[in-house]
Amino acid sequence: MRAALGIDFGTESARAVLVDCADGTELGESVYAYANGVVDAHLPAPDDDVELEPHWALQDPDDYVRSLQTAVPRLLAETGVAAEDVVGVGVDFTSCTMLPTLADGTPLCRLDDLRREPHAWVKLWKHHAAQPEADRINAVAAERGEAWLPRYGGKISSEWFFAKALQILDEAPEVYARAERLIEACDWTVWQLTGVETRSACAAGYKAMWSKREGFPPSAYFADLDPRFAHVVDERMSRTLLPPGARAGGLCERAAEWTGLRAGTPVAVANVDFHASVPATTVTEPGTLVMIMGTSNGHLLLGEQLAFVEGMCGVVEDGILPGYYGYEAGQSGLGDVYAWFVRMVGGSHEALGAEAARLRPGESGLLALDWWNGNRSVLVDADLRGLLVGMTLATTAPEIYRALVESTAFGTRVIVEAFERAGLAVDGIVACGGMPDRNPFLMQVFSDVTGREIAVAGSRQAPALGAAMWGAVAGGEFESIGDAAKAMAHLSDAAYAPDPANRDVYDRLYAEYVRLHDLFGRGGDDVMRTLKRIQLGP
Amino acid sequence: MRAALGIDFGTESARAVLVDCADGTELGESVYAYANGVVDAHLPAPDDDVELEPHWALQDPDDYVRSLQTAVPRLLAETGVAAEDVVGVGVDFTSCTMLPTLADGTPLCRLDDLRREPHAWVKLWKHHAAQPEADRINAVAAERGEAWLPRYGGKISSEWFFAKALQILDEAPEVYARAERLIEACDWTVWQLTGVETRSACAAGYKAMWSKREGFPPSAYFADLDPRFAHVVDERMSRTLLPPGARAGGLCERAAEWTGLRAGTPVAVANVDFHASVPATTVTEPGTLVMIMGTSNGHLLLGEQLAFVEGMCGVVEDGILPGYYGYEAGQSGLGDVYAWFVRMVGGSHEALGAEAARLRPGESGLLALDWWNGNRSVLVDADLRGLLVGMTLATTAPEIYRALVESTAFGTRVIVEAFERAGLAVDGIVACGGMPDRNPFLMQVFSDVTGREIAVAGSRQAPALGAAMWGAVAGGEFESIGDAAKAMAHLSDAAYAPDPANRDVYDRLYAEYVRLHDLFGRGGDDVMRTLKRIQLGP
Repeated sequence: MRAALGIDFGTESARAVLVDCADGTELGESVYAYANGVVDAHLPAPDDDVELEPHWALQDPDDYVRSLQTAVPRLLAETGVAAEDVVGVGVDFTSCTMLPTLADGTPLCRLDDLRREPHAWVKLWKHHAAQPEADRINAVAAERGEAWLPRYGGKISSEWFFAKALQILDEAPEVYARAERLIEACDWTVWQLTGVETRSACAAGYKAMWSKREGFPPSAYFADLDPRFAHVVDERMSRTLLPPGARAGGLCERAAEWTGLRAGTPVAVANVDFHASVPATTVTEPGTLVMIMGTSNGHLLLGEQLAFVEGMCGVVEDGILPGYYGYEAGQSGLGDVYAWFVRMVGGSHEALGAEAARLRPGESGLLALDWWNGNRSVLVDADLRGLLVGMTLATTAPEIYRALVESTAFGTRVIVEAFERAGLAVDGIVACGGMPDRNPFLMQVFSDVTGREIAVAGSRQAPALGAAMWGAVAGGEFESIGDAAKAMAHLSDAAYAPDPANRDVYDRLYAEYVRLHDLFGRGGDDVMRTLKRIQLGP
Repeated sequence: MRAALGIDFGTESARAVLVDCADGTELGESVYAYANGVVDAHLPAPDDDVELEPHWALQDPDDYVRSLQTAVPRLLAETGVAAEDVVGVGVDFTSCTMLPTLADGTPLCRLDDLRREPHAWVKLWKHHAAQPEADRINAVAAERGEAWLPRYGGKISSEWFFAKALQILDEAPEVYARAERLIEACDWTVWQLTGVETRSACAAGYKAMWSKREGFPPSAYFADLDPRFAHVVDERMSRTLLPPGARAGGLCERAAEWTGLRAGTPVAVANVDFHASVPATTVTEPGTLVMIMGTSNGHLLLGEQLAFVEGMCGVVEDGILPGYYGYEAGQSGLGDVYAWFVRMVGGSHEALGAEAARLRPGESGLLALDWWNGNRSVLVDADLRGLLVGMTLATTAPEIYRALVESTAFGTRVIVEAFERAGLAVDGIVACGGMPDRNPFLMQVFSDVTGREIAVAGSRQAPALGAAMWGAVAGGEFESIGDAAKAMAHLSDAAYAPDPANRDVYDRLYAEYVRLHDLFGRGGDDVMRTLKRIQLGP
């Protein structure tokens, strides 16, 4: 038995999975639900009298440690896998989730004099309070004509690394001054595992404007944001970034004690959850789009060359797999949008989906723009809102449910067409994440609307499997991630092909979608932004 | 005691009300629910094996007779009003609701050889199967430049008299041949009461393209529709139309027996329900808009002169009150739209309304176009559909409920502004119908959005009260309907004034509404019609 361990750090919990390197069999899994969950109202006890501002979202770094201490030993015990049979460990994480620490890695929130300071804690990916900083980052970059800006669709998000770092400087300069390191939580966790600070090229490439050829933005740019920010990289980060699959180090004694693994077990450099999923779906070459379908929808694609695709989240050389440019696009609402409607009308996804599946395309006379959570690609505009048109007194809840599903599929088709316009073929799609297994109706609509065959990943835990595969590569079990994928990654039996009978109707509906998409999304009619302004008040 | 009797014939039932002529006190009411209700699936037993086509809606004329036989004697018994104290009888009715009869008034559906023929029955106002005939009526009128067309906003509805009559000729020429009379149900009912055929100028003016100055359209026009239709007016109708308040005759012996009233009791010429409501709300002069708020919303206004107002349902000289032009506009969905949403999400109007009332205008970031049942005024387009924009994952059901209420108020403001553009002042509004009493929140939104004070009629039975008032005029109790209104019509204590604090936000939201209204309603973006075409299939 030669097994690899993958640990997927999510929003509410961490999941450890042990995988047989011979054939990818998942030997077992173990979940640790974070004791302090998402910290978005007040700090954890005993400091729960410290309330947070709106749009804040923090985590407790000790929850990551407790995940290692709890989930891993339990997994070894439950599967009966011996520590010496674990050939390598990989970690994937939400991103950008980042924290300030001392030079030795101690999180500032563990210090007695800073624990009541919200800026000393981990800023979770969905911390949305750094929009003023993101606006400044974008404005200064545009003014200076920074070369990295087009790689990110012309605009970076308030969720990203330097927006969050700059918010610490803006709002809590004393915390910023004490922060000897500013680091992605994925890299911090690998640091705890190995005792050595290493940093992931994937996280830095997608969230910190780093590229293999050009490095980070220049100090002069950071100085234009704030003179005190000029040397943020050299003083608080690192210019050494390791690509996916590189060995970050061996498991340190302390982490061996936490986990029950052997000291010295190889640990891979950290990875971002979406990106770790790609090889776990069997995709290791260009031409196949990976869709990670959960509350939101991530679209990842490999390319041979650098192309500027409209509205990408980012393109990073070696960001997903070595040797390729990794493209990331996305829809900021997918399962979230359907869940909103189910909450609104009651009932269940299953019941609404079953009734929706019986309708013919176009039968409802409805059309939606799927922007309940803004538009991440290709418009890159968080201010956009949802739209639904075509209701009559006879319109039913399953009809609206179906229109919402169709609208997200139309949104994906817009992204697929943006890739193809830039010369990046999308010949097929592989889906993973929480939605595909449970929703054949959803998958058929996506296949019909995009006109692509859609395969479904065999693993329900694609990020953790991907992390384990990278752990196996770091442990020398495979020469390359391609070899690891051949052995360990599989597709499920479920596969969807476009129904030619639906093609014409969906082409007609899509033409309407695109016209409204462009009208409301590209400035032709500004009602959504105007409504937001009115909403925010005078 | 001097009392007047009003009988309101509705869609599902008839309601008789006795009113004290001295002060308008409603002495009692009595409702008869039609035994055969709305006939829209199959004919009544024993002919219930005869199925109806989609969009058909019939009634049984014997239900009108049973109403007279049941509701009126019960009302007299329950109130203790003596027959000799009833000074007059008035009738109001849904319209256009029409039927074919023999020369003596016998409905064709009572004839043994025709009772299984659907075209022999009463076509109810919401019989929507005559659209091909309405299309022909409009096309031929436009081609010939018929002078009456602009009085009806350029387009007549499939609900109206000649569309229904022409459908009989088209689809059942043998029934048409047997129809010695084609008559509004309101006029037929007055005929049953008096034994004399008289016809209402109100119904003819609003539903049969008649006007006091020009009469009916010329025979040449009818001949262009169908040569057999050339003399429909002279052969099957009447050119003698009586204005509201005229005396149709005295109660005949047979009707006296049915009702328990005295033979010879004066009976007023029939009226249409919306139009009968106007004096019952105290409005007998120009300047005050009457809103009849139920499942739909009717807007009635008096004017000194003939003006062409965009998208009116109709303008008829003496059509509402003698001496004035009566203008009618409307919104085809009001309570129906709110009820659709309540059905969709569960809960109640009361609970959703209470939560919606606590929101500030604009707080939800939502905006709707209220066309769930098409647009009756000012766009006159039944193909238009509903639209809702601005949803986020945080949008709640009360927010949508409020947006729907606001959208109907915006729709009313469009109508108010169309009146004012044509030179017809709308200085204030009086509301009646099913909604105002129960929904202070709704009324406040309408007042804020229109910027008008809104009074509420004192009677919950405005049509029946209006019918009784016309009965009192016909009975000589008052010289004019103005005098009757002074004595018998009252406002309730409820009154609403625009809140100046909301004015700016509503002006901004209304500007957005108007832009989307014009974009989707005037051909700028044709998505609603396109979706309907896709829905109907190839």
